[in-house]
Amino acid sequence: MLCRQSLFAGQRKCRMNKIITIGREFGSGGRELGRRLSEELGIAYYDQEIIREISKRTSLSEKYVQAIMDHYPVFSYPIHIGRSFYPTVNPMFEQTMSVYQEQTRIITELAAESDCIIVGRCADYILKEYNPFRIFVYADMESKMKRCRQKAPEDEKLTDRELRQKITGIDKKRAKYYEFYTGQSWGNKLNFDLCINTTQTVIKDIVPAIAKLFR
Amino acid sequence: MLCRQSLFAGQRKCRMNKIITIGREFGSGGRELGRRLSEELGIAYYDQEIIREISKRTSLSEKYVQAIMDHYPVFSYPIHIGRSFYPTVNPMFEQTMSVYQEQTRIITELAAESDCIIVGRCADYILKEYNPFRIFVYADMESKMKRCRQKAPEDEKLTDRELRQKITGIDKKRAKYYEFYTGQSWGNKLNFDLCINTTQTVIKDIVPAIAKLFR
Repeated sequence: MLCRQSLFAGQRKCRMNKIITIGREFGSGGRELGRRLSEELGIAYYDQEIIREISKRTSLSEKYVQAIMDHYPVFSYPIHIGRSFYPTVNPMFEQTMSVYQEQTRIITELAAESDCIIVGRCADYILKEYNPFRIFVYADMESKMKRCRQKAPEDEKLTDRELRQKITGIDKKRAKYYEFYTGQSWGNKLNFDLCINTTQTVIKDIVPAIAKLFR
Repeated sequence: MLCRQSLFAGQRKCRMNKIITIGREFGSGGRELGRRLSEELGIAYYDQEIIREISKRTSLSEKYVQAIMDHYPVFSYPIHIGRSFYPTVNPMFEQTMSVYQEQTRIITELAAESDCIIVGRCADYILKEYNPFRIFVYADMESKMKRCRQKAPEDEKLTDRELRQKITGIDKKRAKYYEFYTGQSWGNKLNFDLCINTTQTVIKDIVPAIAKLFR
């Protein structure tokens, strides 16, 4: 098991597990890259499993946990009483914070267990001490729309405009969630070690090369 | 010889050469990556050679050609006659434009000759038709300063602040040069297929993995 700085140099050995995190734009194939990379390297891959575990530990439904994850928390909202305006603490805020804390705990436990790949979930930030190898996957809009249409349920009928708005909307939420949670700017090249543009790319074809970075 | 789309898929063969272009931040090791990659792949590598060839064909000195390349062209500048102000065409503008044209010609000839790696020179834009594999190399400021100090001539004594300004200044000029020449935003992820952060990285260690993308 090699720590980050020796992923390439093979010089220093230490006890920390090899962690790869995948940040991605919606529709860029980041999940597929993460899953295939984990198969190629023979290491664990965590994605939706984290939602399942949070749900178990908080007794909230998976759907509810996912909904919390999909929105960045709002601390307060204004309420009107008569003609007056009172900002009041969002009662959901505490619950949202406890879900985030559970997520942090779970991700930290998984990283301590074994080498693994984690998709999203601000894992690159949560696992800073592990010096993870941070990958960001992105693509141009046309390519993302194409991938989305290929994977969409059969009954989903969105116009190009609606699909474009959906993709942009999801990424905006991801950015706000990430920025709230980490104080960092989502998608900023400097927060990643490798940024992969999957426009024009068959993902399974590039996996062996990416995997070689870790051997 | 494979064209861009079959670099990974290995499906379609066509007569276009395999071109890799390297855009880079000053001090990020982009040149070193390009040179080592060309040795690993056994293909040509072009960098300063282009300046030399432009110099030969235009009969301008290499130093002068380099100076032109280091600055984005200014079409006009104001001159004052008495109390009046007259914008006038920069007499250097035509010469600058002819150097750019020569650069375009040379780069196009080199790409037609053989597979190759070209550093900078807006080659990714000039060779659009070849669908080149476009790499961007970057790093955090500390890492760039460290590399610059390692490669600097012995008599260069810059304070940290001066060095930081030098690095930022060179990249600002590169950005303006690139934006003038191509109309595109320099360093924008979407204009590259792979962005490599060389902070904490020993460049020769990642070259075999990057090379695998092209085999």
